[in-house]
Amino acid sequence: MSKDEPRVGIIGAGQLGRMLALAGYPLGIECVLLDKDPRSPGAQVAPSIAAELDDHDALRRLARGVDVVTLDIENVSIDALAALAGVAEIRPPVAAVAAAQDRLAEKELFRELGIPAAPFVAIDRAEDLGHAAALGWPLLLKTRRLGYDGRGQRLARSRDELEAAWAELGQRPAIAEGWVRFDRELSLVGARSSREAAFYPLAENTHRDGILVSTVAPFEDAKLQRQAESWLRAIFDRFDYRGVLTIELFSTRDGLLANEIAPRVHNSGHWTIEGAETSQFENHLRAVLDWPLGDTAARGYAGMLNLLGSMPPRERVLAFRGAHLHDYGKDPRPGRKLGHCTLLDGSRDRLLERLDELRAVLA
Amino acid sequence: MSKDEPRVGIIGAGQLGRMLALAGYPLGIECVLLDKDPRSPGAQVAPSIAAELDDHDALRRLARGVDVVTLDIENVSIDALAALAGVAEIRPPVAAVAAAQDRLAEKELFRELGIPAAPFVAIDRAEDLGHAAALGWPLLLKTRRLGYDGRGQRLARSRDELEAAWAELGQRPAIAEGWVRFDRELSLVGARSSREAAFYPLAENTHRDGILVSTVAPFEDAKLQRQAESWLRAIFDRFDYRGVLTIELFSTRDGLLANEIAPRVHNSGHWTIEGAETSQFENHLRAVLDWPLGDTAARGYAGMLNLLGSMPPRERVLAFRGAHLHDYGKDPRPGRKLGHCTLLDGSRDRLLERLDELRAVLA
Repeated sequence: MSKDEPRVGIIGAGQLGRMLALAGYPLGIECVLLDKDPRSPGAQVAPSIAAELDDHDALRRLARGVDVVTLDIENVSIDALAALAGVAEIRPPVAAVAAAQDRLAEKELFRELGIPAAPFVAIDRAEDLGHAAALGWPLLLKTRRLGYDGRGQRLARSRDELEAAWAELGQRPAIAEGWVRFDRELSLVGARSSREAAFYPLAENTHRDGILVSTVAPFEDAKLQRQAESWLRAIFDRFDYRGVLTIELFSTRDGLLANEIAPRVHNSGHWTIEGAETSQFENHLRAVLDWPLGDTAARGYAGMLNLLGSMPPRERVLAFRGAHLHDYGKDPRPGRKLGHCTLLDGSRDRLLERLDELRAVLA
Repeated sequence: MSKDEPRVGIIGAGQLGRMLALAGYPLGIECVLLDKDPRSPGAQVAPSIAAELDDHDALRRLARGVDVVTLDIENVSIDALAALAGVAEIRPPVAAVAAAQDRLAEKELFRELGIPAAPFVAIDRAEDLGHAAALGWPLLLKTRRLGYDGRGQRLARSRDELEAAWAELGQRPAIAEGWVRFDRELSLVGARSSREAAFYPLAENTHRDGILVSTVAPFEDAKLQRQAESWLRAIFDRFDYRGVLTIELFSTRDGLLANEIAPRVHNSGHWTIEGAETSQFENHLRAVLDWPLGDTAARGYAGMLNLLGSMPPRERVLAFRGAHLHDYGKDPRPGRKLGHCTLLDGSRDRLLERLDELRAVLA
């Protein structure tokens, strides 16, 4: 790339950083990543700095060499990010990252913006456990910080179980959340620059043990789409947001509830690489550079399967007609997200059939 | 990438090598490139060795570190390639590369396989120019070697002009080719592994001054598609071919004529990145690694515009709804291929209208 090519710094170089870097090259963007693992998924495809994510010197080195700094993971030290103010633009805004890091702040954000969510009680000390009973049983106890992919969560069916759960979670600050009976889990991915916002169609997600296993998109419901977009737009405006933001939702008998937000590209948006006119990765880069956003329309129907724990034989995946393989270059480990696979189809029913066939092939 | 990831060596690191490397990452393939320019388009996105393409030591170094060696340019020294035998597999086969390098060998290949092409006369010495008159006027004089993008070609409307043209071309071995009145220029891109062959739909190409300026695909004509596939299949079989091969064709009042072949991915196949289920780049990698080939079906209609000489302002391209930008990271130079831009549409008529609008925006 010539010297005047835009450069984007990415804190974290997992699969999200990797796919961001790959989306950057066709646009003439060079991404530079920061990750403690010198052979991280991102470092395999783009220049990277090997350092801890909260290493202030390394962060400053990253920031000085780029036009804008963004994240592939939300659990980055807010202090470390704040210290970059004046060195480089941080996008998304640090305040949005801070809210997404803390389940209590997230819930309070939803409440402030009038976005319905499951009822909750803050658990800061043992006495607070008593108030949780008002939520009814069962309930979920979730640590305020460092929760993702089902970590830091416990189900409690009684006061005794709740006490035990809080002890297991190290009596860390937490929230108790009322149990939500949902019909389906949805997510909305949107992008915002200083001039515009763009929203992908809703996606329907399936989790197992708290980990996303598959996504089918678009989930077509004009009313829910409008509602979810209005919520994401409220969050965008609240933070003068820049970049891609994802909101996870429960669809219940009584309507849509917000579950959580991620201030970044999201696993439930991987289908957009082949399934939308512009991928979430390209749109995140366009948004953080304040370039025009790309068309978010779906191209038919897409189904995405996560490849967890171990990679299936590559030739078996590639022999499946229309299967798009994404290998993150990671070492196998039980439950670890090693890659994903996307199928496309003009018919939703046929897509679901073919997804079942692909699941069988991968099993 | 972990150590058991497949590695592909690519001789040449222009935009084709760059797009091959980018197509490799999601499949878990690491490409290593060889190019004299350490900031070549390919070297900006993948590891590369900086050396001349006929540097035997550098070629051996490249070959030793990879599973298979392939090309982003056909004008590679056949001697240098032959010297790699025993070090690494070369795919496509060296004999196919040799035929594509030499317009006379190419014409003889077409003749041997019964593939109709423009009539020609070999010009090895001044006396041969006299035989060329039998082709009628005007005719094209083309050097046997190093001709691409209209280079090494002269139009001659008379015996005098022919003599002058041959002098201008340095009296190098050439062919005189009868003038073809064609309705349109088409190309067929296909891929072949040891087990299967797959063909993209025909694409329609527009050249200016011998340089491709735009492609629209698919060009839908079942009879021409069948005929072109049968020719490409014959060439595949002749060489026990591995990889992507492109044949450029003239569609004339009297039927299809072969123009030339390229033993590689091709500018007229760039539309496949967004416009086909599997891109030509991914399929070339699958083919040279002898993996199952990917689906070559088109996804609606695609139009590709080359960005020649200078890059339009990036934001202007990105503001055009549905425009997919591919910036090769090259320095501007008159006539140079610096990037391309692809539009998609479900309707061919609407695509052509939008392509005109995009052309106006880029002008």
